[in-house]
Amino acid sequence: MPAPVTLLVHGGAGTLTRANLSPAQELEYRDALGQALRAGQSLLLRGASAVDAVVAAVSVLEDCPLFNAGKGSVFTHEGRNEMDAAVMDGATGQAGAVAGVVSVRNPILAAQAVMQQSGHVLLIGQGAEAFAQSQGLAMEGPEYFHTAHRWQQLQAALAHQQVMLDHDGQHPQGQPEPIDRKFGTVGAVALDAHGHLAAATSTGGMTNKMFGRVGDSPLIGAGTYACDATAAVSATGSGEFFMRGVVAHDIAARMAYGGLSLAEATQATVRDKLDATGGRGGVIALDRHGHYQLAFNTEGMYRGVVQGQAEPQISIYRD
Amino acid sequence: MPAPVTLLVHGGAGTLTRANLSPAQELEYRDALGQALRAGQSLLLRGASAVDAVVAAVSVLEDCPLFNAGKGSVFTHEGRNEMDAAVMDGATGQAGAVAGVVSVRNPILAAQAVMQQSGHVLLIGQGAEAFAQSQGLAMEGPEYFHTAHRWQQLQAALAHQQVMLDHDGQHPQGQPEPIDRKFGTVGAVALDAHGHLAAATSTGGMTNKMFGRVGDSPLIGAGTYACDATAAVSATGSGEFFMRGVVAHDIAARMAYGGLSLAEATQATVRDKLDATGGRGGVIALDRHGHYQLAFNTEGMYRGVVQGQAEPQISIYRD
Repeated sequence: MPAPVTLLVHGGAGTLTRANLSPAQELEYRDALGQALRAGQSLLLRGASAVDAVVAAVSVLEDCPLFNAGKGSVFTHEGRNEMDAAVMDGATGQAGAVAGVVSVRNPILAAQAVMQQSGHVLLIGQGAEAFAQSQGLAMEGPEYFHTAHRWQQLQAALAHQQVMLDHDGQHPQGQPEPIDRKFGTVGAVALDAHGHLAAATSTGGMTNKMFGRVGDSPLIGAGTYACDATAAVSATGSGEFFMRGVVAHDIAARMAYGGLSLAEATQATVRDKLDATGGRGGVIALDRHGHYQLAFNTEGMYRGVVQGQAEPQISIYRD
Repeated sequence: MPAPVTLLVHGGAGTLTRANLSPAQELEYRDALGQALRAGQSLLLRGASAVDAVVAAVSVLEDCPLFNAGKGSVFTHEGRNEMDAAVMDGATGQAGAVAGVVSVRNPILAAQAVMQQSGHVLLIGQGAEAFAQSQGLAMEGPEYFHTAHRWQQLQAALAHQQVMLDHDGQHPQGQPEPIDRKFGTVGAVALDAHGHLAAATSTGGMTNKMFGRVGDSPLIGAGTYACDATAAVSATGSGEFFMRGVVAHDIAARMAYGGLSLAEATQATVRDKLDATGGRGGVIALDRHGHYQLAFNTEGMYRGVVQGQAEPQISIYRD
C-alpha cells in the first residue's frame, strides 16, 4: 500500500507560549496554517506534484500578514523588506532560489521560476527582481509589504538597538520584546501521489537586520533540501547556525550514509548542529514512506500536518 | 608525529589541455599558483592559523589577472564584474561569505570580515559592499577589474549568445571558444600546525551570466566547507550542480556518517553528485591527518599542493 499524500507546514519558531498569545491570536494563526495545509492537500489529492503543493502552501502563508514572509515580512534596519525563498524537487534534484528581493509579491513563485526557467539555482537582488518581472510574476511596491505591527517591531528594535526575531515577544500588551533571537520563515514539505518529495521555504529575514544579510532559507542544503531517496526538509530559526551546520542536507546525509531513519536523523541533527552550538529553531522533515518529524528546540513552532483525506492537525506550543 | 602543515590551491577547472595553453601561458599559471602556495606555506610554518593561510593564498590568486576572481573576474551580460567569496574555519565552525560584490578589491577579505566581525554568515550586494567599506577594506572602481582578455571573452560570448566558463577555449589563437561550460573560481584548503582545517573560495562567476546569478562558491556546504573532524573542501566547476549536490558538505558527511576515508568520500561524491548528473569541475579536499585529494572530472584543473617545508607541486593537466 503506497504512503498517503502528506503535507507539513511551519510558520516560524520562537518564544511561543500560551502567555504570549491571546486565544484570538492563536485562532488566527491556526486558521492560516489550516488554509495553507488545505491548499496543498487539495492539489495533492488531485494528483498534483509535491513541488506544486509546497509552492501553493507557502504562497498562502506569504499572503498572510501574520507570518514573516511575503506580505508580513519584517523590516531591515533601513526600513526595507528584503525577502528570500527556495524550492527543491526531490524527484529531479532541481532547485531554485531568490535572495534579497524587495518587490516580488510571492518570492516562492520566483524561486520556482528560477528552478524551472532560468538554468540557474540562485538569483539575488535586482537580477532576481528583473528575472521575476520577465516571468510575469506579480510585483508590489513597498506599501504592500508595509504592515503596522512589523513597523512597530522595527521601531522597538531600533530603540533598543537590537535585532529581533519575528515571533518573539508577542505578549498580550502588544509590545514586542527586543530579544535578539533570529527566527522567522515559513515552509512546507510534501509527498505526492507519485512518491515524490519536495521542500519550500520563504522568509522576510530579521527585524532590524543588516542590509544584505541572507539567512539559511534560500540556501539549498541549509534551510531547504529535498531528495526522494532520503527526505524533504524545511527549516526555521537562527539562520546562521543552520548555514554553518548545513542542517537540511545534514539530516538527509545521516539517512543516506549513516542508515538512520528520518526520526533518528532529525533528532541527531537537532542535537549536534543546533543544541550543541546554541542554535535555536526547528525543522519539518518528511520521507517517501510518509514518516514525518516536526522538531524544534524553542518554546514553540507554528506547525501543521495533513495526510491523505484527513483533517489538518495544527500545533503551536511544545505540549 | 603530527601531520605536516599542508596547503592546497586550485585556480579553476575546464578544457585545459596542452593544445589549449602555450608553454609561456603555462609558465605564468604555474608561477601564480606557486606564489599562492608559498604565501600560505610561509604563514603556516610560522604557526599561523589555517584561516589566515587560505585567505592569504586566495588573495594572491584574486590579485592575479589570470584567474576568474578579484582582478581577473569575468564580465556579466551587462558588462559588470560580480564577485562571490567564502571562508570557513574548521576549528570553530564559523563561516563568512559575500555574494554579488562589485568593488571590493579582495572579496575573500570581505568574507573573512563577515565571519569575524558581522555576526552573520552571508551578506550580499550593496549591503556587503557597505560592510566591507566599514571594515576599511580596499575598494576599487570598475576600471581595476576591467581586463582586456575578459572583455574579449564577453564580446565573443555576446556574439554567440552563450554563457562561457573562464578557462575554456584558451587556444593558441587567443580567440575564446563560445562553449557553455561554467567553470571558474580559485580556492584553498589548509591544515595548520595546531591541527585545524580551513577552506576558502573566490570567484568572478560566469562570462555573460545573468545579472544576480550566484553559484556555489559563497555557499557554505556547496562550494566551501571545513570541519576539523572531517575535511576542508573548496570546489570549482558548474556551480549549479555543486549547489544541488551540496558537494563540499557531502564529502564531509560521507566521512562523518559513512566512515569513509577522505579519498573514498571525495571519489564517491564526484561520482554520484557530479559524474552522475552531468556536473563538471573539481574539488580540493584535505583532512586533519594531512591526507589530500585534488579530484576533477574535466580535462584539467589548475592546482597545487605544498606540505611542510617542501617545494610546491603544481599541475594543470590530467596526466
